[in-house]
Amino acid sequence: MTKKTTKTISKTSRISGSAGIRANQAGAFNLSSYLKKKQKEIDRAMTRALPAKHDLIGQLVAAMRHSMFSGGKRLRPLLVLAAAEACGKPGTGLMNAALAMECIHTYSLIHDDLPAMDNDDLRRGQPTCHIAFDEATAILAGDALLTYAFELMTKVKTNGSGAQKRLLEAIELLTRAAGMNGMVGGQMADLVCEKKAVDLPTLEYIHTHKTGHLIAAACRMGALLSGATGKQVKALTIYGETMGLAFQIADDILNVVGDHAKMGKQAGTDEARGKATYPALMGLNASRDHAQALMRKGLAALQPLGPKAEPLRALAHYIVEREV
Amino acid sequence: MTKKTTKTISKTSRISGSAGIRANQAGAFNLSSYLKKKQKEIDRAMTRALPAKHDLIGQLVAAMRHSMFSGGKRLRPLLVLAAAEACGKPGTGLMNAALAMECIHTYSLIHDDLPAMDNDDLRRGQPTCHIAFDEATAILAGDALLTYAFELMTKVKTNGSGAQKRLLEAIELLTRAAGMNGMVGGQMADLVCEKKAVDLPTLEYIHTHKTGHLIAAACRMGALLSGATGKQVKALTIYGETMGLAFQIADDILNVVGDHAKMGKQAGTDEARGKATYPALMGLNASRDHAQALMRKGLAALQPLGPKAEPLRALAHYIVEREV
Repeated sequence: MTKKTTKTISKTSRISGSAGIRANQAGAFNLSSYLKKKQKEIDRAMTRALPAKHDLIGQLVAAMRHSMFSGGKRLRPLLVLAAAEACGKPGTGLMNAALAMECIHTYSLIHDDLPAMDNDDLRRGQPTCHIAFDEATAILAGDALLTYAFELMTKVKTNGSGAQKRLLEAIELLTRAAGMNGMVGGQMADLVCEKKAVDLPTLEYIHTHKTGHLIAAACRMGALLSGATGKQVKALTIYGETMGLAFQIADDILNVVGDHAKMGKQAGTDEARGKATYPALMGLNASRDHAQALMRKGLAALQPLGPKAEPLRALAHYIVEREV
Repeated sequence: MTKKTTKTISKTSRISGSAGIRANQAGAFNLSSYLKKKQKEIDRAMTRALPAKHDLIGQLVAAMRHSMFSGGKRLRPLLVLAAAEACGKPGTGLMNAALAMECIHTYSLIHDDLPAMDNDDLRRGQPTCHIAFDEATAILAGDALLTYAFELMTKVKTNGSGAQKRLLEAIELLTRAAGMNGMVGGQMADLVCEKKAVDLPTLEYIHTHKTGHLIAAACRMGALLSGATGKQVKALTIYGETMGLAFQIADDILNVVGDHAKMGKQAGTDEARGKATYPALMGLNASRDHAQALMRKGLAALQPLGPKAEPLRALAHYIVEREV
């Protein structure tokens, strides 16, 4: 658990390079320009939501901003907005829900990187929060981002009948996805199972909880808050659940293949830490097949949504076939 | 910041001993039996809300329960319920809001006790969470309790017109009291100011943010969620704000006097840590006078609420005049 490792992730993991859009070059939809536009909107909104401070909490806010503006993919907020669009809504009123997702994701990275957890010095080629500042500040920055996520949720603009009920439902969804029965529980299970023989159901539990639930919640939330029909919400939920697990399997694969290709010498950090992974349990090819099967299931769920779901389709390919 | 100290707090800090109710013996209201009844209700509800688990998150839940059931005063949930009663509501539907307050308070203690923060091994005579379990588990237990607080908020039973709007307002209130502009910000300011010369406005900033805002939010929330009038909400807000600061000044005083009386030899832990306190800045007597003045202001605000506010009046005396 406290074994020292460094991440071999490139300086920025923006979804913009050729690797990310390879799978979509044949189609009419241009994922690359869609992503550039959306990421810009998300970054602009986050900059407004989290301005620098120069008073007694200046250091706290600087630490929050350090981790928030370090070149993340913005996948979860993108999914909130793209899910709303797939239900026929522009999604601009949901920006605060999208930002809330990124706050939760970022807090989880800050706490995961702490010496008592994964003890990582680098993330995306930059010093992790506790290295750039100190451990106490990193713990508090994580706490503040988690709390701020829920403040942002209360500021989501929703209209129409039942809007407040839906917003409360979305907040509950986020708490469940992020808390002891979701992401935090998955992180605990991951730590408890380190260096132990883990079977496939246990590994699926860890992956769906640690990563999957938040990605699934992003998709479901986008649908819920846009006032989608029950069928639309269900479709987006299936898409989110399959892509959430597929995302983590792809991560496992990259931790083996990505590192080999880039470093040319060392096995993945997961193996060094004694973490169970899909490639270790079922082999690389079967893992790839499983991720592809999940993607197909997710894409099938989107079918009734028609062309408006094109960004989500492109994102599904990206999630499974990305190289960073 | 990492200087090792141990807390000199008795095994349990329940508000039930003679010290806690001295100030109320003359009055007709029996604080001791009121507290015993309410604490029992709160504990019973919390036991139901946080049952033990025996699966992959068993260790996480055990750590949450370890800190949750270690003899805390339950002051914040008590204030939620008593504030609702003062507005003429039984408050039983608000139990989840009361529990949410205790979850936030408990998470803050778990994280504050961590080696990177106050590095405390003992709290209320029992091992702190990271000692009883480990650091990673303690960090996650805090994260899970903070997240669970907001899940509990979404489960608060409210009725009548505008109930959902009021609930969303209460959730926002809690995020602001707990987050970067509230408790977490106060903790950051406290750490940044350690071993520095601090003036009175800065100390008041630290105290109101680190402790005051959450206590104030408990009172305001009880009023808000019970559908109180604007005047009642305002009265409870003034009461909460004054008692929040008074509570922390009383804590400062106890850290000097309490320790001397009990240990008979050593100065308070605040001084050892280089923390600014009211007694250090304005002397013991002036600090006591200031706390009393705040209490009088809080009691004056309660005046229009009549006899229903009797528990809050007794709690005000307890907060300022307690010996533990």
